Amino acid sequence: MNAKNCTIGVDLGGTKIKVALVTESGSILNKLKVATPAQDGPTAVIRKIVTAVHDLLQEEGISPHCLGIGVAGQIDSAGKTVRFAPNLNWHEVPLQAELQRELKLPVALLNDVRAATWGEWLFGAGKGCADMVCLFVGTGIGGSVVSGGRMLDGSSNSAGELGHMTVDLHGPLCNCGNRGCLEALAGGWAIARSAREAVTADPTGGALLKKMAEGSVAAITAALVARAAQSGDPLAGQIVARVSEALISGMVGLINAFNPERLVLGGGVIEGLPKLVGEVERGVKGKALQAALAQLQVLPALLHNDAGVIGAAAFAMQRCGTNKNPG
Amino acid sequence: MNAKNCTIGVDLGGTKIKVALVTESGSILNKLKVATPAQDGPTAVIRKIVTAVHDLLQEEGISPHCLGIGVAGQIDSAGKTVRFAPNLNWHEVPLQAELQRELKLPVALLNDVRAATWGEWLFGAGKGCADMVCLFVGTGIGGSVVSGGRMLDGSSNSAGELGHMTVDLHGPLCNCGNRGCLEALAGGWAIARSAREAVTADPTGGALLKKMAEGSVAAITAALVARAAQSGDPLAGQIVARVSEALISGMVGLINAFNPERLVLGGGVIEGLPKLVGEVERGVKGKALQAALAQLQVLPALLHNDAGVIGAAAFAMQRCGTNKNPG
Repeated sequence: MNAKNCTIGVDLGGTKIKVALVTESGSILNKLKVATPAQDGPTAVIRKIVTAVHDLLQEEGISPHCLGIGVAGQIDSAGKTVRFAPNLNWHEVPLQAELQRELKLPVALLNDVRAATWGEWLFGAGKGCADMVCLFVGTGIGGSVVSGGRMLDGSSNSAGELGHMTVDLHGPLCNCGNRGCLEALAGGWAIARSAREAVTADPTGGALLKKMAEGSVAAITAALVARAAQSGDPLAGQIVARVSEALISGMVGLINAFNPERLVLGGGVIEGLPKLVGEVERGVKGKALQAALAQLQVLPALLHNDAGVIGAAAFAMQRCGTNKNPG
Repeated sequence: MNAKNCTIGVDLGGTKIKVALVTESGSILNKLKVATPAQDGPTAVIRKIVTAVHDLLQEEGISPHCLGIGVAGQIDSAGKTVRFAPNLNWHEVPLQAELQRELKLPVALLNDVRAATWGEWLFGAGKGCADMVCLFVGTGIGGSVVSGGRMLDGSSNSAGELGHMTVDLHGPLCNCGNRGCLEALAGGWAIARSAREAVTADPTGGALLKKMAEGSVAAITAALVARAAQSGDPLAGQIVARVSEALISGMVGLINAFNPERLVLGGGVIEGLPKLVGEVERGVKGKALQAALAQLQVLPALLHNDAGVIGAAAFAMQRCGTNKNPG
């Protein structure tokens, strides 16, 4: 394998570090996953990343030409520093310089959701597309937008907080302090909250959910709601119907605003409830403006848990090569 | 005056055609306005535009090098054809070719809201800025987004329908068929509707509004609500407060999604209620994500009714020159 054709992708989250050796066509040659020692501070986390990269390369015995790392946090516009990463408890960590010094490789740094979008854009459901909205519905909701063949950065590298668009201004409280954000209606934590409230309010209707949670209302999760809904439980079905309604409203707004060619839906909630993709497609095609729908396809994300490492590697390939977006 | 430094800008609406001779620095040398003979069909309208352009040039005695025209309708991706313009009752009118043949000038065609955004971007409140959201709140609500130094087009040239983002999914019906679009809460027609409903429901509280409308509830307009609110009428004040709330929610979503450096607010409703600009600024600064707010300024549009002709001319200057967006 020509080393020039391989790149390392890293996905740094609050609990796990994933590292992969990725080919220029987006295939993973090898990967590994280690726990994030977040409580031990940035130096320990960086050491763990470096060790994981060395372990991965030793196994494969090849030298990639650069590394891309996606981090669950806010990255400065220059792509040098993690400004704030709540799950890591990091503030102003100069991650690019630290990794470059330790690894003797060019390092490209970006936000983890943006990394996953790069992956879907170049090698997944967005392949070949110049106008794409990617929405990842997990515990929270994040996303990114590709428009005119470029991923939008915004004025301070923070574009794409698609989970915090208001869709129900008198709706439930969000973690961000506002009411009725898309995330507060359709994110995993919100699904769990609304299920716990519904089971408490209606113990009879909520009997199955409570039983599945081994009798503990507090143990009800979004994954459990998805399983209950798929087994035909009416209460879980109602909760999922409200999730679907919120996603449709949010996506109608995004489609009207961005006029994408593809809307790609991924993340744990979508993987747990795959029929949401078809429901969102039918919903938006009935509700968005005809002009904005002209080219639209609604598709599930394809790279699943590998989107982050593949996308971080793809981003690094671009940055360390032409330093331009594809398109 | 060097003819090469002048461009004609045209703003074609359902009731008026505005034509202006615009310098390369965005100043208007001369302008005129004629009625749109919409009921006589495209040929008559095109003849009226051509006559107006000739009249304007005769007065000035100079020959501009190109013409830009903004049309209240949907323009094809190639910028050749007006696909659909409801207020003109046009379908698939090849306006670029027709005007080029008649005027013997290169013609650049774009949507009217996008034209106004070009005006504000190059010569108004967005001058010098690479990341801007422009929202025009008139009878309806439209907007456009500049991101990374480019105006977003979308996959079929329809990006920017910012009035049809859902902000209140159980809210009032919109003309587009959905509930709770920003336009259905804060557009001029929606303000008039909500005032008429409020006056009917509360004749005592609505006494001033009804009196200002000379006793006819049906004659209440958004402009009248603005005047009543500014004179301290409590009912009109409540209506305006709801408009402000809806605008803030919608703008929080746009700021979180696009992370702009400037949010520019224009259109008749904003001009009638200029304090909305400050209210939206305070609102979004309290509610949008800190990362997305890092660079944000909220500003009133500067070009008022001339934004369309100046912007159409500016767009034509770019297209007939380098054929690239500025940035």
